[in-house]
Amino acid sequence: MIKAGIIGDGYTAAELLRILAGHDQVEVAAILSTENVGRRLDEIYPHLTGFCHLKCEESKVENLIGRCQVVFLALPHGLSVNIALTLLEHGIKCVDLGADFRLKDVSLYRKYYELEHGAPEMLERAVYGIPEIYREDIRKTDLVANPGCFPTSAILPLVPLLKEGIIKGEGIVIDSKTGVSGAGRTAKPASHFCEVNEGIKAYGVGTHRHGPEIKQELSLAWGKTVDMIFTPHLVPMNRGILSTSYAQLNPGSNPTTVREVLEDWYGNEYFVRVLPPGTMPHTKWVYGSNFLDLGIYTDPDSGRVILVSALDNLTKGASGQAVQNMNLMLGLDESKSLRWAGVHP
Amino acid sequence: MIKAGIIGDGYTAAELLRILAGHDQVEVAAILSTENVGRRLDEIYPHLTGFCHLKCEESKVENLIGRCQVVFLALPHGLSVNIALTLLEHGIKCVDLGADFRLKDVSLYRKYYELEHGAPEMLERAVYGIPEIYREDIRKTDLVANPGCFPTSAILPLVPLLKEGIIKGEGIVIDSKTGVSGAGRTAKPASHFCEVNEGIKAYGVGTHRHGPEIKQELSLAWGKTVDMIFTPHLVPMNRGILSTSYAQLNPGSNPTTVREVLEDWYGNEYFVRVLPPGTMPHTKWVYGSNFLDLGIYTDPDSGRVILVSALDNLTKGASGQAVQNMNLMLGLDESKSLRWAGVHP
Amino acid sequence: MIKAGIIGDGYTAAELLRILAGHDQVEVAAILSTENVGRRLDEIYPHLTGFCHLKCEESKVENLIGRCQVVFLALPHGLSVNIALTLLEHGIKCVDLGADFRLKDVSLYRKYYELEHGAPEMLERAVYGIPEIYREDIRKTDLVANPGCFPTSAILPLVPLLKEGIIKGEGIVIDSKTGVSGAGRTAKPASHFCEVNEGIKAYGVGTHRHGPEIKQELSLAWGKTVDMIFTPHLVPMNRGILSTSYAQLNPGSNPTTVREVLEDWYGNEYFVRVLPPGTMPHTKWVYGSNFLDLGIYTDPDSGRVILVSALDNLTKGASGQAVQNMNLMLGLDESKSLRWAGVHP
Amino acid sequence: MIKAGIIGDGYTAAELLRILAGHDQVEVAAILSTENVGRRLDEIYPHLTGFCHLKCEESKVENLIGRCQVVFLALPHGLSVNIALTLLEHGIKCVDLGADFRLKDVSLYRKYYELEHGAPEMLERAVYGIPEIYREDIRKTDLVANPGCFPTSAILPLVPLLKEGIIKGEGIVIDSKTGVSGAGRTAKPASHFCEVNEGIKAYGVGTHRHGPEIKQELSLAWGKTVDMIFTPHLVPMNRGILSTSYAQLNPGSNPTTVREVLEDWYGNEYFVRVLPPGTMPHTKWVYGSNFLDLGIYTDPDSGRVILVSALDNLTKGASGQAVQNMNLMLGLDESKSLRWAGVHP
Repeated sequence: MIKAGIIGDGYTAAELLRILAGHDQVEVAAILSTENVGRRLDEIYPHLTGFCHLKCEESKVENLIGRCQVVFLALPHGLSVNIALTLLEHGIKCVDLGADFRLKDVSLYRKYYELEHGAPEMLERAVYGIPEIYREDIRKTDLVANPGCFPTSAILPLVPLLKEGIIKGEGIVIDSKTGVSGAGRTAKPASHFCEVNEGIKAYGVGTHRHGPEIKQELSLAWGKTVDMIFTPHLVPMNRGILSTSYAQLNPGSNPTTVREVLEDWYGNEYFVRVLPPGTMPHTKWVYGSNFLDLGIYTDPDSGRVILVSALDNLTKGASGQAVQNMNLMLGLDESKSLRWAGVHP
Repeated sequence: MIKAGIIGDGYTAAELLRILAGHDQVEVAAILSTENVGRRLDEIYPHLTGFCHLKCEESKVENLIGRCQVVFLALPHGLSVNIALTLLEHGIKCVDLGADFRLKDVSLYRKYYELEHGAPEMLERAVYGIPEIYREDIRKTDLVANPGCFPTSAILPLVPLLKEGIIKGEGIVIDSKTGVSGAGRTAKPASHFCEVNEGIKAYGVGTHRHGPEIKQELSLAWGKTVDMIFTPHLVPMNRGILSTSYAQLNPGSNPTTVREVLEDWYGNEYFVRVLPPGTMPHTKWVYGSNFLDLGIYTDPDSGRVILVSALDNLTKGASGQAVQNMNLMLGLDESKSLRWAGVHP
Repeated sequence: MIKAGIIGDGYTAAELLRILAGHDQVEVAAILSTENVGRRLDEIYPHLTGFCHLKCEESKVENLIGRCQVVFLALPHGLSVNIALTLLEHGIKCVDLGADFRLKDVSLYRKYYELEHGAPEMLERAVYGIPEIYREDIRKTDLVANPGCFPTSAILPLVPLLKEGIIKGEGIVIDSKTGVSGAGRTAKPASHFCEVNEGIKAYGVGTHRHGPEIKQELSLAWGKTVDMIFTPHLVPMNRGILSTSYAQLNPGSNPTTVREVLEDWYGNEYFVRVLPPGTMPHTKWVYGSNFLDLGIYTDPDSGRVILVSALDNLTKGASGQAVQNMNLMLGLDESKSLRWAGVHP
Repeated sequence: MIKAGIIGDGYTAAELLRILAGHDQVEVAAILSTENVGRRLDEIYPHLTGFCHLKCEESKVENLIGRCQVVFLALPHGLSVNIALTLLEHGIKCVDLGADFRLKDVSLYRKYYELEHGAPEMLERAVYGIPEIYREDIRKTDLVANPGCFPTSAILPLVPLLKEGIIKGEGIVIDSKTGVSGAGRTAKPASHFCEVNEGIKAYGVGTHRHGPEIKQELSLAWGKTVDMIFTPHLVPMNRGILSTSYAQLNPGSNPTTVREVLEDWYGNEYFVRVLPPGTMPHTKWVYGSNFLDLGIYTDPDSGRVILVSALDNLTKGASGQAVQNMNLMLGLDESKSLRWAGVHP
């Protein structure tokens, strides 16, 4: 068995453990924590009882060296850089679920994360971890920047249409809706049950950190800087992201070409399900699974394209995609331990 | 006491009863039903126990004539036209909560409601019932077309900016999110708890009937036909609509002018609360109340305006606004029996 | 206008403000806080925008003296005793929404709250504030111990049957289910949305502090110490308590006598609604209102009585009942500013 | 591969498909329906896209003969009897997820299901399908009566204590709370989102059909007819049952013996997790999984035992247990395709 380590004990760490419990070639050998050192994982997360016998160890990178071939970093931004450098030096592959290696432009990192990046030279080395777009690069790298949950939901629908010149790069609107687990496990007023339940709100309007991440990837696809706006909303549910993306057709494009391009790109992808005409996704259909479901509507008169995408923010939006990336980095079957249906109802 | 009648026994009817229970100049004298004739209202809606002693009567318009001075029609589309005609003939004022008198263009009615309109000549006579826009007309009319819940949420933020030339009439995107009560009380697979809870979906993409209603009012404000798209989403909550509207500034406009226009228009309106800079609304803050809360964000670089509006679809989005209209039509204080705060948490 | 003060700025304080906004003889003149001094109330609770212009003042009792005739104490246990003493000395009436004056037995207070009581001599003076049971005492007192939310839901159904000898005082089981707002507004892991939503759990099994409070009142009604057990459960909803109480008929009692006693006791009570045979309550029917709804089932064969009671933990279970008590203490109409129906759906 | 058939297309059928998608020795060969003949399963249940390519066939038992070695009957009560008889005649093993073979006493069946049983002689032949209690019988039978969701949750905790004489058979109270999927997929007013969300209610008080089923099994364990009462409640969540069972210790028993008996019985059971002292279960910890989690509290003074059990009503409460039974009937590893953790959060 290949040995994996996890740094962090939040929801994405718990989801990694749930997923990897079913993996027959990789097992988790160690998990590091700052607040729960010495506690058993299944005491913190009783749903894992019977699936994980580990105790949290102190959050020192030395605790992983010599014991793991791959490490998942599930840390607040700013903390991954030095740890990843040390692990890489010791030949350990890294999947960073945080934000430290996602933005290629170090000035954007400074602006949005209000931090000086500790190793800007690593930014080019890190591969942005969407396998459906960067599969070959991921296979070859030892450092994956696992994408944000919102970016995954918006990039996958829009990149093919930008790359193939089907839609314009100006005037893109991405309106996203997320469940609460995306904000993490720490108790905050904004995640108090009574402040979320029976209501919906927008947040981070115009300033959310996933905005520049989406913009980077869309611009790479389009070939120049796109003009887009991204607004996240908080929905009273545990899991799930639904992104509604609005764009304008280029001359010469039409409803048929939109659908053809997306079906071509994703027809052979296990984890992207392009829904038939007339069907729009529901986040419930991907609950607990690693799928991204994609619904397409194009209005022939106005030339407006509406793409609706659904994923589970903890799986395809975080830990599931991280395992998908790990499988690729280790030369394993990409869908290993990820081939199960969503839990519905 | 002025006597009111209600036709229909769904959620909007129940909400009318809840609101009017606190009115000191109007009382409900009769309620007509098709499915619950002879049943007490508080048996169907036990939350009204102690507040309504009426029984449902047979749905014949004669049951109201001579007994009511004003009637609320809470019926599926297509059913209100003839009833309203009869009531008006007998000098009874009508507030129609359905869709039959909202669209001025009878061909749009035909297209979206798949019906031939029974009295197209009435369309001009009916006043579209948003008091903050058509107050004087409402005061003088005997027939109000009470607006749809989504339209109310989108029209109030956008009309002032279009009318004052602050934003463009092209490229408007309205992304709306609603609770489930907007779909009514009838049991349908799509409103089954398990099909809604723990998930979010888009529906009626590109085809929802509230699209042309919004377009009509925005175009009237702009002076010509706007180019806009409207997408509704279903959120796991009982009540509430949040609409996120995206538009583009005209040259010469800026964040300050956007805010000034909206604060000017609504500064003296009791039921529209323009939130301070940096605050975005939450549907929970208006839960059970007749307020529309409005948050404003303008990006000076891109010239993009984002307006986020929240209301309770059963009050300001339906029955509360209907009572507001009734108060105006009867020459009463507009906010009578509507001056209470939202229920939070 | 009579002036009232509030100490505390949590959910029960916000609910007091919401309720008192509609009172025509009492107005809130000051609100004290520890964490939000200087902040406007409607900034903390935007649903109160337009209904409360106060700013939080420093939590010193002197800030209330000379400005208020009645004060609501909404504080963690242990903090009310000295404050109440000072207020009473200055002739200010007190309604304590905390637990400091509820238990008459100071040793139980010590055991369950792990504190030495600061003024045990006050315990007899304080009146336990359930108006339907202690109305005359409340009218005459200047210190009300406002009951806990669970106790209110269990005491009202059981006391009449114990007092009239209909049921046995042994073997009583009270199984209660509450929404999350009962745990207060402070962010804790246990009230994180994702830890509550889509699940139910029991908590405080055998040790919850409301157990001795219920036992005290049931024992007073029965004339000797009852044998009972109380188990609370946490349900994914904001508001509401449903208590299912199981007891055994005494010989000579039967389904008819059970119903008669309860209908006799509560037939003239505005805020207790005894439901007709075959109807069981739903917390939704009392949402946001001050009612307790009571359903009765008696199995003639086994002699088992099942009483199901529903209330809103923030109104009849806390702030609504506090206002009811205040109205009585001030000689006002008991239901003043509390006569509205629940918000459904 | 062994071929399985499913009759019915409701939530338990969908859950069978989800579970069996991961089975490496059994595959679903046919599914029969009345309302969806000709429709693809993944069109009805899009979460199964990629996991089930079957179309619904007409609900004729001949459609299964010769094609399946085992059949799951997921039908309303009354419909399974004749179908099961035919299948058994053709040597096909049956797991009936309905209620037709659960009650051994045909007069109870008549009373609670208001039907004459079509084959009372089969009642003794059918094995009540709780593997942890009837494992050896299940291995040998060709007809399993898969238990109700509530009964599974109550029988597993109480049977060992009754059988070993630890608790009394009189005065047992079982207070259960369920999610909405237990009521099935059919759209009914009682399962409308707005009638369930943000509230809790009791239902079927004193009359629910799972009462006699629980009583049968507890009485078998105790050796004579127990005196018990069972009350179900509806909680706003999709999945999950929490049962709180109250019983009285026999003389000579104590907290230690209670725990010892339950740990002895279930220490080697994969699907029953007895939680450590002080820990009470949460339905979230078993969400989507086949576990029953059991928390124990015994009050030494009053001799009261409180057992709190949690399961997922669609897995251990229905389809998961059905697959567990099927595995036993086919001589396979009992936990095959059921070894995954719950989905949390």
